[in-house]
Amino acid sequence: LNEPLNVAEVIERAAATVEPNVWCYFEGGAGDEVTLRSNVAAFRRWLLRPRMLVDVAEVSTATTVLGTPVSMPLGIAPFALQRLLDPEAERAISRASSAAGALMTVPTLTSYTHGELNAAAQGPRWLQLYVQRDRQLTLDHLAEVREAGYGAVVLTVDLPYVGRRERDLRLGFAVPADLRLHYGTLVDVAPDLTWRDLEWVRDATELPLVLKGILTHEDATLAVDHGADAVWVSNHGGRQLDGVAASLDALPEVVEAVGGRCEVYVDGGFRRGTDVLKALALGARAAFAARAVAAGLAVGGEAGVAHVLELFRGEIELGLALLGCTSPDQVSRSHVEPTVPYDPPA
Amino acid sequence: LNEPLNVAEVIERAAATVEPNVWCYFEGGAGDEVTLRSNVAAFRRWLLRPRMLVDVAEVSTATTVLGTPVSMPLGIAPFALQRLLDPEAERAISRASSAAGALMTVPTLTSYTHGELNAAAQGPRWLQLYVQRDRQLTLDHLAEVREAGYGAVVLTVDLPYVGRRERDLRLGFAVPADLRLHYGTLVDVAPDLTWRDLEWVRDATELPLVLKGILTHEDATLAVDHGADAVWVSNHGGRQLDGVAASLDALPEVVEAVGGRCEVYVDGGFRRGTDVLKALALGARAAFAARAVAAGLAVGGEAGVAHVLELFRGEIELGLALLGCTSPDQVSRSHVEPTVPYDPPA
Amino acid sequence: LNEPLNVAEVIERAAATVEPNVWCYFEGGAGDEVTLRSNVAAFRRWLLRPRMLVDVAEVSTATTVLGTPVSMPLGIAPFALQRLLDPEAERAISRASSAAGALMTVPTLTSYTHGELNAAAQGPRWLQLYVQRDRQLTLDHLAEVREAGYGAVVLTVDLPYVGRRERDLRLGFAVPADLRLHYGTLVDVAPDLTWRDLEWVRDATELPLVLKGILTHEDATLAVDHGADAVWVSNHGGRQLDGVAASLDALPEVVEAVGGRCEVYVDGGFRRGTDVLKALALGARAAFAARAVAAGLAVGGEAGVAHVLELFRGEIELGLALLGCTSPDQVSRSHVEPTVPYDPPA
Amino acid sequence: LNEPLNVAEVIERAAATVEPNVWCYFEGGAGDEVTLRSNVAAFRRWLLRPRMLVDVAEVSTATTVLGTPVSMPLGIAPFALQRLLDPEAERAISRASSAAGALMTVPTLTSYTHGELNAAAQGPRWLQLYVQRDRQLTLDHLAEVREAGYGAVVLTVDLPYVGRRERDLRLGFAVPADLRLHYGTLVDVAPDLTWRDLEWVRDATELPLVLKGILTHEDATLAVDHGADAVWVSNHGGRQLDGVAASLDALPEVVEAVGGRCEVYVDGGFRRGTDVLKALALGARAAFAARAVAAGLAVGGEAGVAHVLELFRGEIELGLALLGCTSPDQVSRSHVEPTVPYDPPA
Repeated sequence: LNEPLNVAEVIERAAATVEPNVWCYFEGGAGDEVTLRSNVAAFRRWLLRPRMLVDVAEVSTATTVLGTPVSMPLGIAPFALQRLLDPEAERAISRASSAAGALMTVPTLTSYTHGELNAAAQGPRWLQLYVQRDRQLTLDHLAEVREAGYGAVVLTVDLPYVGRRERDLRLGFAVPADLRLHYGTLVDVAPDLTWRDLEWVRDATELPLVLKGILTHEDATLAVDHGADAVWVSNHGGRQLDGVAASLDALPEVVEAVGGRCEVYVDGGFRRGTDVLKALALGARAAFAARAVAAGLAVGGEAGVAHVLELFRGEIELGLALLGCTSPDQVSRSHVEPTVPYDPPA
Repeated sequence: LNEPLNVAEVIERAAATVEPNVWCYFEGGAGDEVTLRSNVAAFRRWLLRPRMLVDVAEVSTATTVLGTPVSMPLGIAPFALQRLLDPEAERAISRASSAAGALMTVPTLTSYTHGELNAAAQGPRWLQLYVQRDRQLTLDHLAEVREAGYGAVVLTVDLPYVGRRERDLRLGFAVPADLRLHYGTLVDVAPDLTWRDLEWVRDATELPLVLKGILTHEDATLAVDHGADAVWVSNHGGRQLDGVAASLDALPEVVEAVGGRCEVYVDGGFRRGTDVLKALALGARAAFAARAVAAGLAVGGEAGVAHVLELFRGEIELGLALLGCTSPDQVSRSHVEPTVPYDPPA
Repeated sequence: LNEPLNVAEVIERAAATVEPNVWCYFEGGAGDEVTLRSNVAAFRRWLLRPRMLVDVAEVSTATTVLGTPVSMPLGIAPFALQRLLDPEAERAISRASSAAGALMTVPTLTSYTHGELNAAAQGPRWLQLYVQRDRQLTLDHLAEVREAGYGAVVLTVDLPYVGRRERDLRLGFAVPADLRLHYGTLVDVAPDLTWRDLEWVRDATELPLVLKGILTHEDATLAVDHGADAVWVSNHGGRQLDGVAASLDALPEVVEAVGGRCEVYVDGGFRRGTDVLKALALGARAAFAARAVAAGLAVGGEAGVAHVLELFRGEIELGLALLGCTSPDQVSRSHVEPTVPYDPPA
Repeated sequence: LNEPLNVAEVIERAAATVEPNVWCYFEGGAGDEVTLRSNVAAFRRWLLRPRMLVDVAEVSTATTVLGTPVSMPLGIAPFALQRLLDPEAERAISRASSAAGALMTVPTLTSYTHGELNAAAQGPRWLQLYVQRDRQLTLDHLAEVREAGYGAVVLTVDLPYVGRRERDLRLGFAVPADLRLHYGTLVDVAPDLTWRDLEWVRDATELPLVLKGILTHEDATLAVDHGADAVWVSNHGGRQLDGVAASLDALPEVVEAVGGRCEVYVDGGFRRGTDVLKALALGARAAFAARAVAAGLAVGGEAGVAHVLELFRGEIELGLALLGCTSPDQVSRSHVEPTVPYDPPA
């Protein structure tokens, strides 16, 4: 009876286990954390519309992202400083996601080299990229990963400056001086990055380019026009500009602007298999989770991450069946509708 | 002063009386129980529009369902494992509902044989049916009930797999090994059931066929097209796919799709006579309650069920009068309007 | 510092002073008390639109109702059993309202005769009327009051049966056997009263006829068509059919249906001068309060009622000035707008 | 770790530091304080729409108001009786705002003469003006300030009478008899002030005229038609007529009515840099804060005010960058959208 029954419980355990002045970094958001909370609440703004009397004896959660087969439409979003939660850090997550056949996005700021990660497990992996103020560092970064098994580069575009996260300031969070960091230092991001730099990034790598951090139809259109291979809707987990839309709320306008010209992903607030199904119904090809995975890592290392992934997979599978779908591809816009916007007091 | 004054109080007493790891089965829902709570809240999304200066000296709650006279437009929805709450189980409910002239839906999973139930009381009764993986078991079931006094078959279509009910998992709910079960075992439902199977069911029984578990206009249209004699709007009490619409919220689209071609019923969250009146105004021919009846059974056996039915009947009667109606037939769409969707903070 | 600063505080004191099993009768509503609470909340669904740079050096709250001058557009709604709160009962209220120049509606169920009330004070007074099952009693009633100084008959049409008020049942409220009642007994209302009876009532009195308890445009139109001199929007303080609209929410559709053909009044939830101004802006000629006055009576007898009336008058006066109006007549539909229907969580 | 991290924390400290029967005057609002709370909540009714991949290496918060350069689009709104919070009062605020390059609005009711204030610091300053019942006092006032360095006159038009602030009454707030007041007495405002008086005010000063306290498009149009140089949207911090719109909610209709013919400002509930950005996006040229500044003054005198101004400036700067803007001028209507009006229960 003691195994967490759902992702929310895993997060509760992590919050109860990890030192508050460390967990704040993983859990907190910017400003008043309005966007942070809205990310989670947004899923309740959509209802599922289940269809009956469909043969669902066989259901598969498998799908593809940028052509790569994955076991389910839920991948792992990048997040930094994983070694604060578990000594195996990115290696633990890589092993767990590889075993589950799930996609992992490896952050720029790792504790292990890309070679070490590639040696640890060979499941589907993408590389998250910050373009640094010193562009040569970014070129070196892209050169280093060339043989490390990555299937795409996920360029984070919503962090010209780091958001003001008051939990961290309040609790005095600081990166320990002796924390193992692959690049030996924190990144120093380029605040002058513009759409024109995309050409430069594309020249520096042969991998497909995913733009992460898009929240508006204007930028979604620009992304497609500049040749992005995919658009990733994200508000950086509510950690950058507080007061922006929940990711799920921004998803429809991005999907409409993209108009099928490339794949669309989304992260932010995913806790349930039904959350993932709602994202698919609104046009996402896949969803990504970071806090849920960080919590799994914190409470159980590789096994904890595996448990979180299996919770998602199981819920997606059952949800597909009860929705009357046998695969993620069958989930369509008609499977959701806006919630009646009123919850009267008791 | 100690008699429960309303159905909510009966449920409170049941929750305080029955062992938590048993009551969870009857009270709980799937996932985060969003749909479970929404079922109850949905009634507050509609206001009643009462008409004055109508002669309501004589008011009758009587109506018919599929042509059968019943004493009121509130029947008993099927629910399993009733003997966990009272040794007389389905027999107690059958006696109470027969005495009240209310319709009872007998679940597939009973503790008494259909002959025993028919011997106990002869009020209006329908049979709830799960189609089993082994179709022969279902044929046997339908053959067995032929002389047992049922007026219709209510085919439940929203359970290809059992929903994940975390309360049960958390509290370790399990069906006791020695629980008397008429069929000796739990049902093993067919996940490959499709619309085509309806023909097969119709061939196996002469009873009218009600489809229970419809939530969309698409499926309501399919049901009518496939010859259903009635459509029953239900989300299985919030116990299957969490995040679907409250039953009452799904009712209007089903009623519109059916367009008067067959009767429409609804269950989920009914606690008040005025809840039933709202369902009638939105186009339901009758409403059904399960948890309310389970609670009555738990706190007082047959007498407890009788009390719950009388609470509903009395409230429906008074509500009709104050609405300016002398019978359920007079309740029309003009007797409800959407609630102003804003409840400002104090 | 101990004088109540507003009507809500007067009500709090009454609730803290009067025996719970007595105060329940005055404060409670029917069923789940959804309508009771909504009556108060409804005022927050409308915002005031104040105009600046208007000369408001002189402001008057005076107005007329059915041609009778009153000191303000807030009168006293009828409520029964006042002697449970104060021995002077209707006499205390009559003296206080007469002194304030405010309109009082005397209930059918008084502790003093109409002659005694007329002797007590001669301010503007209307008579509330229940038509009894035994019509002769009603004819006698109307004959008795002929010389008692009433300016209109307010026929209550929303009580063919008494609503189910569970607070009273829970706390065991009962009318004391020795309570002085002018007619010696409780009323036995006619549930067969119809629009045709209005002719009969009009024949029995020369006073103007106000219909109290209208909530729909259909009934408002019927009222005008049947020659009502005024329509009084009311849900009987949330004490009859729970789940109907708040009075203020029903007001606009009634005002529109009436189309200026007679005066419209409203009661239910009035606590503030600004509540009255909102009702005026939405088309009411006057508002009425019962619980506020009952609370004043309970905490201070005649002086308590006077204090409540003065709180209302003062707030209406200041509100008019800050709204840019010098009299109730100047308050128009452009002085209100619907509240932005969203109050986001902190 | 003890420095307040945001304006809300500064206000919390002030509330914990200043005597309750003094702080009530600065913090409280009129009536039920619905408008007071709504002023703050209103910012959550709008979401920011951030644009990515814009070069934000250089960001400036500087702008102009009526042609005067200021360091940021957040100025100090006028508020009276500052010496109750700090002996240096208006001088402390003037020094802090001058040092920060921010605009200060000096209230009519100061503890220091305008000459003393001008001597203290020479940053951008406007004069708030109440027109007094005795018009000669107002002429004297305008004559006195002629050489005191003011850039505009801000005529407050929403206080023909003082609103009823029940916190003050409850706690017994009173202006100490020995409080230093420049004019030796409280102001006695003219309740008969009308649009025609504007000509008279314009004749008495050569300074631009800002009208403060406008909440409707009707009055905004009248203001422009009467030659106002700017319109200041305000509900007097929720201290005059309770139940009017939040300032931010009234802003769009005023901006639309003004149609670019003059500048529009807004005050009420500003606590965050993102609040200011939302106001700019909705068409305000600048925002103003009073309570935030009063709190800073209360907890730290001049340094406290400086800290509050720096919190605003820093948040505006970071917010601009994360929004994809390098200056206030670039913030446009497309940078905000209404919040999805539903926050579902957990």
